[in-house]
Amino acid sequence: MSEQRPRVVIVGAGFAGLWAAKTLAGAPVDVVIVDRNNYHSFFPLLYQVAAAELEPGDIAYPVRTILRRQGNAEFRLSEVQGLVLDDKVVLTEGGPMSYDYLILGIGSTTQYFGVDGADKHSFSLRTLDEAVALRNHILRRFEAAEQATDSVERRRHLTFVVVGGGPTGVEFAGALQELVNGPISKDHRLIDPSDVSIVLVEATPGLLSIYPNGLADYAGRRLTKMGVDVRTDTPVAAVDVSGVTLADGTTIDTSTVVWTAGVGGDPVVTGWGLPTSQGGRVPVLPSLQLDDHPEVFVTGDLALPRIDVPMVAQNALQQGSHAARGVLRMLSDQAPHPYEYRDLGNMAVIGRNAAVVHLFNRWSFKGFPAWVVWLGVHLFKLIGFRNRTAAVLSWAGDYFFGDRAARVILERSDTRSPQNPKDSLDR
Amino acid sequence: MSEQRPRVVIVGAGFAGLWAAKTLAGAPVDVVIVDRNNYHSFFPLLYQVAAAELEPGDIAYPVRTILRRQGNAEFRLSEVQGLVLDDKVVLTEGGPMSYDYLILGIGSTTQYFGVDGADKHSFSLRTLDEAVALRNHILRRFEAAEQATDSVERRRHLTFVVVGGGPTGVEFAGALQELVNGPISKDHRLIDPSDVSIVLVEATPGLLSIYPNGLADYAGRRLTKMGVDVRTDTPVAAVDVSGVTLADGTTIDTSTVVWTAGVGGDPVVTGWGLPTSQGGRVPVLPSLQLDDHPEVFVTGDLALPRIDVPMVAQNALQQGSHAARGVLRMLSDQAPHPYEYRDLGNMAVIGRNAAVVHLFNRWSFKGFPAWVVWLGVHLFKLIGFRNRTAAVLSWAGDYFFGDRAARVILERSDTRSPQNPKDSLDR
Repeated sequence: MSEQRPRVVIVGAGFAGLWAAKTLAGAPVDVVIVDRNNYHSFFPLLYQVAAAELEPGDIAYPVRTILRRQGNAEFRLSEVQGLVLDDKVVLTEGGPMSYDYLILGIGSTTQYFGVDGADKHSFSLRTLDEAVALRNHILRRFEAAEQATDSVERRRHLTFVVVGGGPTGVEFAGALQELVNGPISKDHRLIDPSDVSIVLVEATPGLLSIYPNGLADYAGRRLTKMGVDVRTDTPVAAVDVSGVTLADGTTIDTSTVVWTAGVGGDPVVTGWGLPTSQGGRVPVLPSLQLDDHPEVFVTGDLALPRIDVPMVAQNALQQGSHAARGVLRMLSDQAPHPYEYRDLGNMAVIGRNAAVVHLFNRWSFKGFPAWVVWLGVHLFKLIGFRNRTAAVLSWAGDYFFGDRAARVILERSDTRSPQNPKDSLDR
Repeated sequence: MSEQRPRVVIVGAGFAGLWAAKTLAGAPVDVVIVDRNNYHSFFPLLYQVAAAELEPGDIAYPVRTILRRQGNAEFRLSEVQGLVLDDKVVLTEGGPMSYDYLILGIGSTTQYFGVDGADKHSFSLRTLDEAVALRNHILRRFEAAEQATDSVERRRHLTFVVVGGGPTGVEFAGALQELVNGPISKDHRLIDPSDVSIVLVEATPGLLSIYPNGLADYAGRRLTKMGVDVRTDTPVAAVDVSGVTLADGTTIDTSTVVWTAGVGGDPVVTGWGLPTSQGGRVPVLPSLQLDDHPEVFVTGDLALPRIDVPMVAQNALQQGSHAARGVLRMLSDQAPHPYEYRDLGNMAVIGRNAAVVHLFNRWSFKGFPAWVVWLGVHLFKLIGFRNRTAAVLSWAGDYFFGDRAARVILERSDTRSPQNPKDSLDR
């Protein structure tokens, strides 16, 4: 009789889950990674899909293919519906799944801070599907603007409000302005680029709060020079079908509000019986374990450790690896170490030849040198994604020709699928 | 006062419409091309998107970008809702649009020949959206098969029925078998490729009826050797949620039926007041003009000229150009010439190193030489699609590594878009 190997179930194939799985390669455990999508997406470049700069396939790759060479790992496409912590069981669409160790890394959701109408009337930019939906919406706005019969309607179509001056908001506003200045101005002869208004609103006094002031100021100046209307100290009071109302009472008439301002845990885990703090994150021990269930590790944006860590990709993958090493220590009857975050740095790209880079809390770059660093690091990070070649070609085309390949509006809402009750995954 | 130039409205940005527009480049007319999608798709390679071999963006390109350098052409993203032939007006979602000359090229729809349930319960492969929906469904079948709890259900997930032994059916069945033999067998360790069943059913005694017998026989033998279950002389009696019922009463239990068997005009034009024959095609004069309205040309799959022409891309683009030249002749008070189809040849690819090519009704190739010809011709044809580089890389990867890049299941049905009544194109 063969020895039964401990089973490690990983929920979520984001950075945390995937790095946990990779860290367990070759270990004497059976790994099952569960996700509701069959792909891992490279979250830091989602905004480039939304800005029609990259194709979805450029930043997404099947989990199975990533783990193809890892003999002890299996993938399960399924939506998790709950946990029975006392029985060590994950409940999925496809049935219950028992575990010896559980690593949760389901990521984060958008937080709206109670701003009236924001959840209903704004676009979010946290999943690949959301990025594609936003891209389609934006491209349709330019088509609609050409057909608009009065100037108010036309201006409304050509006004884009990005809420949140963090990295996603800054990068997306910059990419959108470059889309307008480049391909849109070439393809829409009837649209004057100066009629397009891209507004970046931030509630606090500055952009990019985690960067040194010099870099943050540069980012703001650069965006303004590109044509973005940057408004700091500008909280949003409400969002509705007609647009955005700011705290000072002024309104911006628009049908495109992109909400990048807040990020929190996923409230779905409350229903799974996990304790959550405000913001939906799960409080964990310094080792990332659950207090009552040491066999359960919580990682990435979902976890709320006692030390303050940023909700960024770097932290998620470090925590995923840490949790996996914690499992291995428990297997040899040792206590998991406490987690420590190593801040390798942050970088954001604003536009062509323009980025900000802050490395190891020490070195700052901006402008062209920073852009080169950004490009190099992202190309390197995309390794493992076989289609990085396509991303490089896209970027090169964009750089040298100011053009973009990804401007096809797919996913018409009226696409008919056969009426087949057997069409879903599991019934 | 500047002279008013005649306005040519082209409905449809497929091969017919696009070639009509290109033929009018530089002519003293204003061209407006209307389509409900913002892109032209390279129809002959749709099946490769469905078989997860190419990304949608590889075979689709924005119409505006294609026509960027053509100063007399404009694009309008809109759905046509009707015609008022006597007033020379096209009714669109975005309002009425008047014309001096009209070229219709809206393509074809799938014909089900009255087979019970076929329209409701089978996948069609005529649009890019349909190809993506089919790809998602197919990839989910392998995920579901791994999770199936009994062997009947498992077999059902792994059975794929392709109806129709024409070029699309043959090419798609071959591509699907290669998907299974290659990437699926590598990524799904729990699936035995020999458990997968791909059935190609054709009602008549042979595949590829427009090819010489030698080539058609080769295609059938080659598919069989690859593992496809080829059944000729096998009409389909009905399709329902549980699968396919053949004319002889046998049933095939499956949740994937792909209908490639019939093609006809688009019945929507009956509502526009156009005469249609059986199959929904519009009878036209030898010049492709409407009998009562010589200012209206009907082209591509929608047209039913008095001579017999195949419903293929070659014919559509030749007819599009012909209609445009007809308009130019009318502008100089000359009668349009009758249309003549120049049969340049046909080609279909069956699998790696295997294709059939029949050129100028004279030369036949099969096997590797035919595959090289096929590859060369399609690379050449994709010129104008800037992203052909990506297609070449995909194909090269597929050839050398037996791998495919396009296996990301996008478009989850529960993706939420903001509730915004202003979200549609034109209200």
